[in-house]
Amino acid sequence: MNRTKIFLLACTALAATYAAAQSNDATHPPLQVPAKTLPVPTDVSPGMQSIIAAPRNPNWNQLWKTGEEWRTAANAQAAKSVQALPAMRQRLHVTVRPDTIDGVRVYIVTPDVIPPEHRHKLLIHVHGGCYVLFPGEAGTSEAIIMAGLGHFKVISVDYRMPPEAYFPGALDDAMTVYKAALKTTNPKNIAVFGTSAGGALVLEMMLRAKQLAIPLPGAIAPGTPMSDVTKTGDSFYTNEMVDNVLVSRDGSCDAATVVYAHGHPLTDPLLSPVYGDMHGFPPAILTTGTRDLLLSNTVRVHRKLREAGVDAQLEVFEGQSHAQYQFDDRVPETKEAFGEITAFFDSHLGH
Amino acid sequence: MNRTKIFLLACTALAATYAAAQSNDATHPPLQVPAKTLPVPTDVSPGMQSIIAAPRNPNWNQLWKTGEEWRTAANAQAAKSVQALPAMRQRLHVTVRPDTIDGVRVYIVTPDVIPPEHRHKLLIHVHGGCYVLFPGEAGTSEAIIMAGLGHFKVISVDYRMPPEAYFPGALDDAMTVYKAALKTTNPKNIAVFGTSAGGALVLEMMLRAKQLAIPLPGAIAPGTPMSDVTKTGDSFYTNEMVDNVLVSRDGSCDAATVVYAHGHPLTDPLLSPVYGDMHGFPPAILTTGTRDLLLSNTVRVHRKLREAGVDAQLEVFEGQSHAQYQFDDRVPETKEAFGEITAFFDSHLGH
Repeated sequence: MNRTKIFLLACTALAATYAAAQSNDATHPPLQVPAKTLPVPTDVSPGMQSIIAAPRNPNWNQLWKTGEEWRTAANAQAAKSVQALPAMRQRLHVTVRPDTIDGVRVYIVTPDVIPPEHRHKLLIHVHGGCYVLFPGEAGTSEAIIMAGLGHFKVISVDYRMPPEAYFPGALDDAMTVYKAALKTTNPKNIAVFGTSAGGALVLEMMLRAKQLAIPLPGAIAPGTPMSDVTKTGDSFYTNEMVDNVLVSRDGSCDAATVVYAHGHPLTDPLLSPVYGDMHGFPPAILTTGTRDLLLSNTVRVHRKLREAGVDAQLEVFEGQSHAQYQFDDRVPETKEAFGEITAFFDSHLGH
Repeated sequence: MNRTKIFLLACTALAATYAAAQSNDATHPPLQVPAKTLPVPTDVSPGMQSIIAAPRNPNWNQLWKTGEEWRTAANAQAAKSVQALPAMRQRLHVTVRPDTIDGVRVYIVTPDVIPPEHRHKLLIHVHGGCYVLFPGEAGTSEAIIMAGLGHFKVISVDYRMPPEAYFPGALDDAMTVYKAALKTTNPKNIAVFGTSAGGALVLEMMLRAKQLAIPLPGAIAPGTPMSDVTKTGDSFYTNEMVDNVLVSRDGSCDAATVVYAHGHPLTDPLLSPVYGDMHGFPPAILTTGTRDLLLSNTVRVHRKLREAGVDAQLEVFEGQSHAQYQFDDRVPETKEAFGEITAFFDSHLGH
């Protein structure tokens, strides 16, 4: 009986939490979480285990303050990252050709094989990198993966970045390319995709297209979008120091975004699109991981889309930190993520 | 130039992680995460904030070892939790009547209003509670919410629990009710749903129905299923002490499951259904939260379903710990979660 009494007083999970919720006094103390040790998950592929096991990005708290500093850093990184691209293009049977569209630099990314049902379809890619990284060819990696695994023609936008242009330069350039595409391709046959800042730009493009009252595309794939750059979102806290890519909201990526914003309020839906009106958005597929610092940024956009009546599909990958579903075209999880995006585009484009 | 050199050496987020992944030597050291403070998220409703802000379930590490001990504890908790049910039934305009079906105790849960398009539909509810909690009427809470918000007739299975029966007693009872339902209702008009252990039982029922070669239902809604009770799943670690409901895999809920398993291997797909073959499963909607200890258990099932070609939809709610989407029928997030499940059943049943 004593045991029962103790149990009645303490109660179990559901009842205890519920009861505490009921007696809430509107001041909510924060939750203290002790230090912990995270083993590398065993329920992902060996390739993805290696990506998850990588040490934290050592530069996560490098806080450059000017567009010029960021460009120096971005160029150095780009010089290194482009070295992996020729082998990737070869593996995926994709060719990449630089071009300009109405003055905006782009890369035309074409797979060797385009099946008949994709011949009239066109994808527009908006690369990530905190609005400052991956200039030039370095920004084509995800476009190559999409073209190679999905067998679509892709135009990757090499939008202007600081110090060449600040907000809304990246958005303006992406819109220029989108508007040009509308002249040659039925919007129902166009999809727009991108990851991180690229995912945010995809959403910002939809808000801008609504403002301009121009047709929206047939589908979008905003991957782990930087949809809220105001540090609102629970995973900014729960996944801090857990995500080995972004590591922390107080790190380099959001510092870069502040440089891009150039004094413009971060709450503007064209910088934090989770605050935009998403009614009328096209069908959307969103991708993230359980360790992603932007897990909340992603699921909040998913819920906003669903609340607005949009056909929106959410994919969350086990153990992955920010954007890791597009780090290596050779791991099964990457093929799976882009397989989902391809299937989504196949079922929503052309209708 | 020195800055550039440092940057080249250290590299940024994507490149650094990628490079480290490439040089992996197959031994993966764990990640050390420092102690942290989690504020209550501001981007959820006030009602949900209260639920999230509740202190950790004080009984999370109560590790009863026998069916008799668990039953004493469960009865004490049930006596308390049923006190909230009359008001909930009244609020949601639902009546509940005890009955038996082929010897299995059930509750027939009927909303006052059943729209014409739901009159031939039938939902079967399998309650949660770690296979030991919520005996009798205490197990009807989620069925009342589903019937009241979704306007479906629901049969809630009051399956036998330890010490009355051990594995596979709960599954056997749920199957008895399902097989009885097949005699009166077209399987295309039946959906099965449940949360936590109830979510696992939903999946286990599908595996058993495939074994028996009987028709599968038109749709299922396994909410945050206990799909892996072997402590595999990254959120067992990342959300330990973050989830204020289950708190830890090494806590009471999995101890209860071990009592239910009664020596049967925890790796059996009828106890850890993530290891089952999900080909041929009906369309499924899964619900979880970003702080859920079973976030990985949920997204892994989602991926397994998708890999098996099943139409599976994932809903992840901001900031919620385990099963909190069904804690209080009055908060907007609960209405949203069950609104999604209702819409999913509406679009998949009857076809």
